[in-house]
Amino acid sequence: MHPEFSQRTKDTMDSFIMSLVEVAAQPGMISFATGLPDNSLLPTGPIEDAAKAVLEEGSASTLQYDTPTGYIPLREYIADRCHKELGFDVDYRQVIMTNGSQECFDLLGKLFLDRGDRMIVENPGYLGALQSYSAYGPEFIGVDVGEDGADIGQLESILQKSPKLFYSIPNHQNPSGISYSVDNRKAVAECIGDSGCLLIEDDAYGELGYDGRVGPTMKSMIPDDTVLTGSFSKTISPGMRIGWMVIPEWMSRDAGKGIEASSLQSNTFCQKVVSRFLADNDYDSFLKGLRKSYKIKKEFFMDAMADNVPDVMEWNDPQGGMFVWFRSPEGTDAMKLFDKLIENKLVTMPGRPFHVNGGENTIRLNFATPSEEQIIQGTKILGKVCREMY
Amino acid sequence: MHPEFSQRTKDTMDSFIMSLVEVAAQPGMISFATGLPDNSLLPTGPIEDAAKAVLEEGSASTLQYDTPTGYIPLREYIADRCHKELGFDVDYRQVIMTNGSQECFDLLGKLFLDRGDRMIVENPGYLGALQSYSAYGPEFIGVDVGEDGADIGQLESILQKSPKLFYSIPNHQNPSGISYSVDNRKAVAECIGDSGCLLIEDDAYGELGYDGRVGPTMKSMIPDDTVLTGSFSKTISPGMRIGWMVIPEWMSRDAGKGIEASSLQSNTFCQKVVSRFLADNDYDSFLKGLRKSYKIKKEFFMDAMADNVPDVMEWNDPQGGMFVWFRSPEGTDAMKLFDKLIENKLVTMPGRPFHVNGGENTIRLNFATPSEEQIIQGTKILGKVCREMY
Repeated sequence: MHPEFSQRTKDTMDSFIMSLVEVAAQPGMISFATGLPDNSLLPTGPIEDAAKAVLEEGSASTLQYDTPTGYIPLREYIADRCHKELGFDVDYRQVIMTNGSQECFDLLGKLFLDRGDRMIVENPGYLGALQSYSAYGPEFIGVDVGEDGADIGQLESILQKSPKLFYSIPNHQNPSGISYSVDNRKAVAECIGDSGCLLIEDDAYGELGYDGRVGPTMKSMIPDDTVLTGSFSKTISPGMRIGWMVIPEWMSRDAGKGIEASSLQSNTFCQKVVSRFLADNDYDSFLKGLRKSYKIKKEFFMDAMADNVPDVMEWNDPQGGMFVWFRSPEGTDAMKLFDKLIENKLVTMPGRPFHVNGGENTIRLNFATPSEEQIIQGTKILGKVCREMY
Repeated sequence: MHPEFSQRTKDTMDSFIMSLVEVAAQPGMISFATGLPDNSLLPTGPIEDAAKAVLEEGSASTLQYDTPTGYIPLREYIADRCHKELGFDVDYRQVIMTNGSQECFDLLGKLFLDRGDRMIVENPGYLGALQSYSAYGPEFIGVDVGEDGADIGQLESILQKSPKLFYSIPNHQNPSGISYSVDNRKAVAECIGDSGCLLIEDDAYGELGYDGRVGPTMKSMIPDDTVLTGSFSKTISPGMRIGWMVIPEWMSRDAGKGIEASSLQSNTFCQKVVSRFLADNDYDSFLKGLRKSYKIKKEFFMDAMADNVPDVMEWNDPQGGMFVWFRSPEGTDAMKLFDKLIENKLVTMPGRPFHVNGGENTIRLNFATPSEEQIIQGTKILGKVCREMY
């Protein structure tokens, strides 16, 4: 006999991603499924140097508790970067370090959502974040995102229903690779500003625009109505779990209490190592190299797709990030394609779970994780199965 | 204009601890207030070696994502230790790594508590955990803990009210330093077993018994009705945030989904460093040294108390952990003493916030953090102020 799980536990969405991990681990399986950065592009050498330097300073404070909101020099670095790169000024006290971006989403859901509250999400939108929010029982309302960004007409009409939050990824979105245009950002900011809805601007892929940042942050336009979330997971290391959120001042007290109640603090050691890495290396030049490498890999992937996959299928050409958005012909069910691909030893990520509605004919392909050889083999499998099915 | 915070945010207790951090940082202030381990006892050298070894293996997987439930070799080590030291067998799959123990408490509250559900907590009980649970709006019901452990009569009567959870620290409790006797553990296990209430057995201080572990785990008696939580924060490093929970199998699916939704996973890098530290060092002999050092420090503190503090005050002689439980005469208000001590440059932790009811005349003293010189100075201040007031 044991206690019943909470309503919250029942509300929490299953993650399709985790169910794929076992499939992807089968021998001989090629994976375009996950959202992992390319292992070979993680700065293992410089991180090793930074970790040694931090440890050799011999300060026990490296292993000790720090404040819940995080290691101050790292927060100062991020605040400075907001000023130089993201177009707004913020005091480091409004930069809160978290256990990766995922903890930001959990905290923001926890801070604001009562069961039944309305929340705007992108359609399609990032599944991992939706899973976080789902625990707090919101009614998700989807706003379609197309090549230009969020559908402003839909957004205006949804805002009439007093949603509390709008979660958006304006740069190289996961899963679709889409970025909001500059005009679209301005229009979104104008709608949201002072509507009573808080914008969550997830900038996880902002640094991964192949030709630099694709547009200004909405945080710079409506700072008091926006939480910007960021992470070193896509650039330096996912496994160190160093994320952050830049919050408006009116949230400070409750956000600090929230992180303390949830996990006390993000880990001191990795924060100090990342801080040292940033102090000892030219981060901008590192990012430049990273963008270049991902651009080359994306181009390799696009070439392999063009060579191997029939024209009846559609896919986009992303300008940053790690994902290609793939569509089977309108009206067909890509879940069938997904199943058939697994039989042929290629695992992909179905697009349906990223949608509040629609998306039956979509699949997300990650080109960052597989090797060039796997990209060739994988796109050949994809082409063969597509030719058989469509 | 911004959205209203959730009911959950309003329910979340303030942490008295954080409000003391600024006070403790004032120049010339001596602190007996926090729960920090002694900096000089953290194994900085061996951790440095372990971190270097992990990094020199050069595997990018050190910086990459891992599974939400944690790094398998570390979970295997903990499962093995459960078998050897804690008296029960468990498969590593039931060991879930977390961002410190605090994330265990948050997850368990999140998994089980709907607003208004009843939850048993120790009176006094650990404030940081109560803060975590409070976000989920339970009705806390206190069970008194005395020298022998939890009050079994009270526990039996509270269990009639169908509480979902009982949170307990049976070894060297924070704040009181009390441990449950062997008979008390058996009686608690008998009450809880199959009552439908889940026992959360927080073993944070279990390894810090000056003469070894003080009693068997209740997890070994009622494994299917108990979650045992553990942490390396009190032994190896608080700042690495490596905690875990050992769960019954029936919780596996939902606990895995829970950690994924909350923070995706605990950090890979520190898990690997701790795992390597455990592989390359004799942990039992390290713990033996640690216990001896804390015992010596405790005895130093007790001597300084006996020398400097008048007999009208009472305090216990803990057999493990980091805390001494201090009482002003029955009927007096220790908050007044607390304020007066701050004026005299000694910050302590009032006992009242640890209580569901009562505790007005209690104060928690941490002897692990201050230096010997600070202990002498601090106990002199304590004695002087007590003589003035009582």
